[in-house]
Amino acid sequence: MKRVSVGVIGFGTIGAGVVKILLKKRGLLKKRSGIDIRLARVCDRDFSRDRGIGKIPRDLQEKDWKRLVSSPDIDIIVELVGGVTIARDIVLSALKNGKIVVTANKALLSEYAREIFSVGIPEVNLFFEAAICGAIPVVKDIQEALIANKIRSLYGIVNGTCNYILSKMFADTLEFDLVLKQAQELGYAEKQPGLDIDGIDSAHKLSLLSLLAFGKYVHPDDIPTEGITNLELIDLLFADEMGYSIKLLAVGNDTRQGLDLRVHPALVPYEHMLSSVEGVFNALYLQTDEAGDMMFYGRGAGRFPTASAVVSDIVDGAKVIASSEGARAKQVIDFSPRLAQVSCRYYVRFTVVDRPGVLAKISGILGRNKISIASVQQTERARAGTNTVPLILITHEALEEKMKKAISEIARLDVVKKEPVVIRIVDL
Amino acid sequence: MKRVSVGVIGFGTIGAGVVKILLKKRGLLKKRSGIDIRLARVCDRDFSRDRGIGKIPRDLQEKDWKRLVSSPDIDIIVELVGGVTIARDIVLSALKNGKIVVTANKALLSEYAREIFSVGIPEVNLFFEAAICGAIPVVKDIQEALIANKIRSLYGIVNGTCNYILSKMFADTLEFDLVLKQAQELGYAEKQPGLDIDGIDSAHKLSLLSLLAFGKYVHPDDIPTEGITNLELIDLLFADEMGYSIKLLAVGNDTRQGLDLRVHPALVPYEHMLSSVEGVFNALYLQTDEAGDMMFYGRGAGRFPTASAVVSDIVDGAKVIASSEGARAKQVIDFSPRLAQVSCRYYVRFTVVDRPGVLAKISGILGRNKISIASVQQTERARAGTNTVPLILITHEALEEKMKKAISEIARLDVVKKEPVVIRIVDL
Repeated sequence: MKRVSVGVIGFGTIGAGVVKILLKKRGLLKKRSGIDIRLARVCDRDFSRDRGIGKIPRDLQEKDWKRLVSSPDIDIIVELVGGVTIARDIVLSALKNGKIVVTANKALLSEYAREIFSVGIPEVNLFFEAAICGAIPVVKDIQEALIANKIRSLYGIVNGTCNYILSKMFADTLEFDLVLKQAQELGYAEKQPGLDIDGIDSAHKLSLLSLLAFGKYVHPDDIPTEGITNLELIDLLFADEMGYSIKLLAVGNDTRQGLDLRVHPALVPYEHMLSSVEGVFNALYLQTDEAGDMMFYGRGAGRFPTASAVVSDIVDGAKVIASSEGARAKQVIDFSPRLAQVSCRYYVRFTVVDRPGVLAKISGILGRNKISIASVQQTERARAGTNTVPLILITHEALEEKMKKAISEIARLDVVKKEPVVIRIVDL
Repeated sequence: MKRVSVGVIGFGTIGAGVVKILLKKRGLLKKRSGIDIRLARVCDRDFSRDRGIGKIPRDLQEKDWKRLVSSPDIDIIVELVGGVTIARDIVLSALKNGKIVVTANKALLSEYAREIFSVGIPEVNLFFEAAICGAIPVVKDIQEALIANKIRSLYGIVNGTCNYILSKMFADTLEFDLVLKQAQELGYAEKQPGLDIDGIDSAHKLSLLSLLAFGKYVHPDDIPTEGITNLELIDLLFADEMGYSIKLLAVGNDTRQGLDLRVHPALVPYEHMLSSVEGVFNALYLQTDEAGDMMFYGRGAGRFPTASAVVSDIVDGAKVIASSEGARAKQVIDFSPRLAQVSCRYYVRFTVVDRPGVLAKISGILGRNKISIASVQQTERARAGTNTVPLILITHEALEEKMKKAISEIARLDVVKKEPVVIRIVDL
């Protein structure tokens, strides 16, 4: 039986999960894969802190990652350090030393894709299933199961923190700030939550999804990205009345007009599967030419769900070594794809003075910008202590730039009392 | 570049889809896999009938499957003949001749598993992604992505015909017979619909899912199987009132008490993802030890969705050939696993005479069988022209055999006018 040796660098939450599975399930993995996958060493600066998986043997402990990455008796390097500095050095040196690399580091892969994918070849020496949607095998399914398909569109709920917050706001009718605080106390949100709630983490994942699904790479900084910090409970409630939930979506469309990638909150119709994805769960919805529509759903984070994906990558890497195959193609990636102009329907909520003529002013500006209104809802519930009322519009399909222009004009009207809330409607 | 030659046997709906993709996307597959996958020949008794994909070249046509299966210049045999007679000969001879076999034939694999899996090894020389849930990569995901997991339970909506009928009954408030007729006219149900609506097709798939997920095989005839023919609209409506949809489920639980496999209609709570699976779509919900809960959703049938899965199998088979790997383990299958006693909550609808004392009689019989009642609902809507009313009970968890005994006793009461309707409640 072939034997493959693994070095794990980074003994944090995920690293400890991977180590535990490799130690506990060595026999099971051997039976299922036909390969003996041996944990050779674990690298971290500190082994004294309790990781909740018991002590690991002294002779497995290593403090210098450089020794691991250059060690001739290690076949697979698992990078779970996080960040984009040391992790970058680890991944690049390991690849250059001929190691197979497994990583869960979406920030690193998406920000340094040009550099990394020039030496790292997916399915050959670079595996990163855990970088997108945790336990859900989106990388494998796109690369292998859907190999005969052109993927037309993808819609992902790829950040569990945001989805948890939005689900909770609606379920408990609470405002954003309060739910964020609760989420932080429960460990579902970081103390510095910006990476999640500002949509940046979703943009990292979308950058990688585009690379996989469309073979087209866009740097995360160049993906139009909105987070969920401006969403108010009232929007979730109005959306609900109209038959929609609100989700933070990572959207990708590969059209004849070009590539359209974006991250933003969106109304998703209740009839659609994605609107049923609640709490910390993730999901990826794909529209393909042969297989039709598909959705993959599961846990996008957490120690063991993520470790499950890392270990499946280790096994896939071990199979490559065991079979000494070299027949797989390097993925063709377009690093400068053409970008599309986006148009969609919009939900807009204005906070306006309760006075005649307001709707006429607003609809006038929209009309001049070629945006037509599909429906209007003006309720009578004026907010206590103010003379303002919410005015909800649903538009027909409109170009994004026209919409932006119209909204900024409207925002300057003296009858408009707060920054308008604009949410895209996703028609799947 | 490596070249691999494919022979497709069976030029029906799926076969023609596979042929079309292999011809049309040869370049794409080459680019993505690094292997040139050549359609060498197509076998059928008749090539005159139009398959809707244009003419295929004369030199690709073959009428004798035996010639294909023994041809030294063919590496992969794709069996899409269907049935369990000729298909069995094709699959077994091809495997014995050292070919890699790809098939979508769930009836064959599940009924002749002992014989076929003694020579056919999943992921090595036998691929059958399309046999379960069509385009959805459930085989790959269980075998590869979840390799580090023990799968505890699975809940599948694996028959699109049944799911379509149930969705349609509820959406249009129509009775079973009428919807079945419509489904037959639309091509969603066969003229002889028994295989689908009696749950047999679901049992075939469940037999294979058990083999994959638990490594335990049960012949489909030995899986307790109920179809949807006894479901009435009223049940869907009552279930809805209580917050449930009704789905035909393939259920598998691998417990310490033994293996529990069954196919039956079930109430699924609206909060659960599976209850959102509508129409002809399929889904598989898994509960695992490391990765947590997951669901895979997509098209379970149809020419191109099924062909998409067949082609991904062809590519995986081609990779095996191209890499000349032999390191993969033969799957360990327990052919005589221990079976579990099943207990669950039940929804029961009795059609009873509208007379005092009826509930006392029924609850007395249930009590003597150790079945306790969680809730009772007796409406006043007596059916026109009768003096009967529906009486709905929800039980607490009860053993299946006790339940059967109690129901048959109750059915013999003179106040009970129709066969009771018994539906399991799935508490996920």
